[in-house]
Amino acid sequence: MPSIETILSPALFHLYEEDLEHKNVVVIDILRATTTICVAFANGAREILPVAKPEEAAAMQQKGWIAAAERHGKTVKRFDLGNSPQDHTEERVLGQKIALTTTNGTRALQMSSAANHVWVGSFLNIKTLTEKLRTDNHDVLLFCAGWKDKFNLEDTVFAGAVASLLAGGFTITDDATLAAIDLYKKAESDLHAYLQKASHVNRFKSLHIESDLEACLKTNTLNVLPEFKNGTIQNSHNA
Amino acid sequence: MPSIETILSPALFHLYEEDLEHKNVVVIDILRATTTICVAFANGAREILPVAKPEEAAAMQQKGWIAAAERHGKTVKRFDLGNSPQDHTEERVLGQKIALTTTNGTRALQMSSAANHVWVGSFLNIKTLTEKLRTDNHDVLLFCAGWKDKFNLEDTVFAGAVASLLAGGFTITDDATLAAIDLYKKAESDLHAYLQKASHVNRFKSLHIESDLEACLKTNTLNVLPEFKNGTIQNSHNA
Repeated sequence: MPSIETILSPALFHLYEEDLEHKNVVVIDILRATTTICVAFANGAREILPVAKPEEAAAMQQKGWIAAAERHGKTVKRFDLGNSPQDHTEERVLGQKIALTTTNGTRALQMSSAANHVWVGSFLNIKTLTEKLRTDNHDVLLFCAGWKDKFNLEDTVFAGAVASLLAGGFTITDDATLAAIDLYKKAESDLHAYLQKASHVNRFKSLHIESDLEACLKTNTLNVLPEFKNGTIQNSHNA
Repeated sequence: MPSIETILSPALFHLYEEDLEHKNVVVIDILRATTTICVAFANGAREILPVAKPEEAAAMQQKGWIAAAERHGKTVKRFDLGNSPQDHTEERVLGQKIALTTTNGTRALQMSSAANHVWVGSFLNIKTLTEKLRTDNHDVLLFCAGWKDKFNLEDTVFAGAVASLLAGGFTITDDATLAAIDLYKKAESDLHAYLQKASHVNRFKSLHIESDLEACLKTNTLNVLPEFKNGTIQNSHNA
C-alpha cells in the first residue's frame, strides 16, 4: 500500500526527497496561492506561471500574459489582478495566461519539480484531487508551503483533510500526518471558526481582506486539478 | 506580556534565533533524553554531560564519570548505563557525574546555548518547569528535539501541555503552539493511549522497551529543574 507523509514546512522538505521521482506531491498554500490557482482554472485560465517576484510577473505582462501580484493586500500598480481568488473571475481570466506572484507557493512548487506528479491542492478541488491520488496509487507527500518557512495551521488542516479522505487506501505512520488528521478532525465541523485563530488569518484581518477566507474554505466546489510541470501550471483534469 | 512559541523541529530553529539571549528555551526530548535527565537528577546525580556519540561518553568514563549509551535498545558494551530513565536509579547515579549519549537532545541543547536560560523539560517535572517559566517572565521557546529533524508527536504534545499550563500569563499567537495545545487537549485524558500511534513509540515497541513509555509519561512526579549552561547540565532547582 502506498504511504502518505506530510511536510509541515519547506525547511523540512529535504527530509522527504528520497525517491521523489516515484512520489506524487500536493502543494498546499491555502491562503491563498493554491486556492487562487484552482479558481482561475475553473474560470477558464489556460495556463498559470508561478513567479516569486512582481518584477517577473511584469516581464511576462510584456509578452501578453496578465499579471497578478499584491503588496500589502492591494493589487500592484499597473498589474491586472491581485492574488485574491475573488479577483480571478471568468470575466478576467477566461482564455488567459496568468503570471501569478506567490512567494511561498512558487518556491514549494519549484522544490517539488522532480516528483512523479506535482498537483495543486485546495479545499475547493479536494474531491478531484483525492480521487486522482487514489487512482494514481503512488506514495503521497502533502507539502505545506507555510509562511516564511514556519508551520501554519490552515495548510496543515488541509493536509489532514486530504489524509482523512485517503485513509484506508494508504499507510499512514508518519507523526506529522497523524497530527494533521487530528487537527482537521478538531476543525472540520466549522473550518472558518477554527481558523479564526490562525496567525495568517489574523494577518488577513489586518489587511481588510477577510472575505477571502470564506472563499478559500469552500470545500469541494471545483472540478479542476492543476498540475505543475516544466515550470508552469496547467489544468490536468478532463472534466 | 511575554510570548510562547513552539519549534517543531531542530531544522526550524534558525527561524526563532532572533533575540535568543532574551528568551528562555525548554528543550524537549520526551522519549527519552530529557525524561532520563530529570530522573537522574531526582535520584541524586551531580552533573550530566550530554554528548552526541558513545565515544565521547567513553572518553569521560576514563575521567571517572559514569557513561550512559545505547545502540539498538541495549546498553553499549563496557558502559555503565543505558539511556532508559529506568536505568538511572538512585543506587546507580547518586552523587555521580554522568556522560549521557543522546543524538537529538544534545544537538538541541547545544543549538540553544545562547539563550537566557536553557531548561530541560519532561512530563515528570512539568510543574516545577512551568512555575519557573512563569516567575522568570521572559519569552519562551518550546524546542522539540524531534527525531532526525522530523516532527514528532510526543514532543509536540508535551509542548502543548506546557503552553496550556502557561496560558493567560503569556501571549500565544504562533500557529505551532496553537496546534500543540489542540493536540495536547486531544491526548490529555489518556496520554499513553494517544501516543500509542506515534512513530517513535512504534520504534520503541520493536525494541521491546515498552515500559519506558509509561515511565516517560508520569506527569509531575519530580521536583527538579535541570539547566544546560556552559556545555553541561546541573539541577538548578532548590527543592
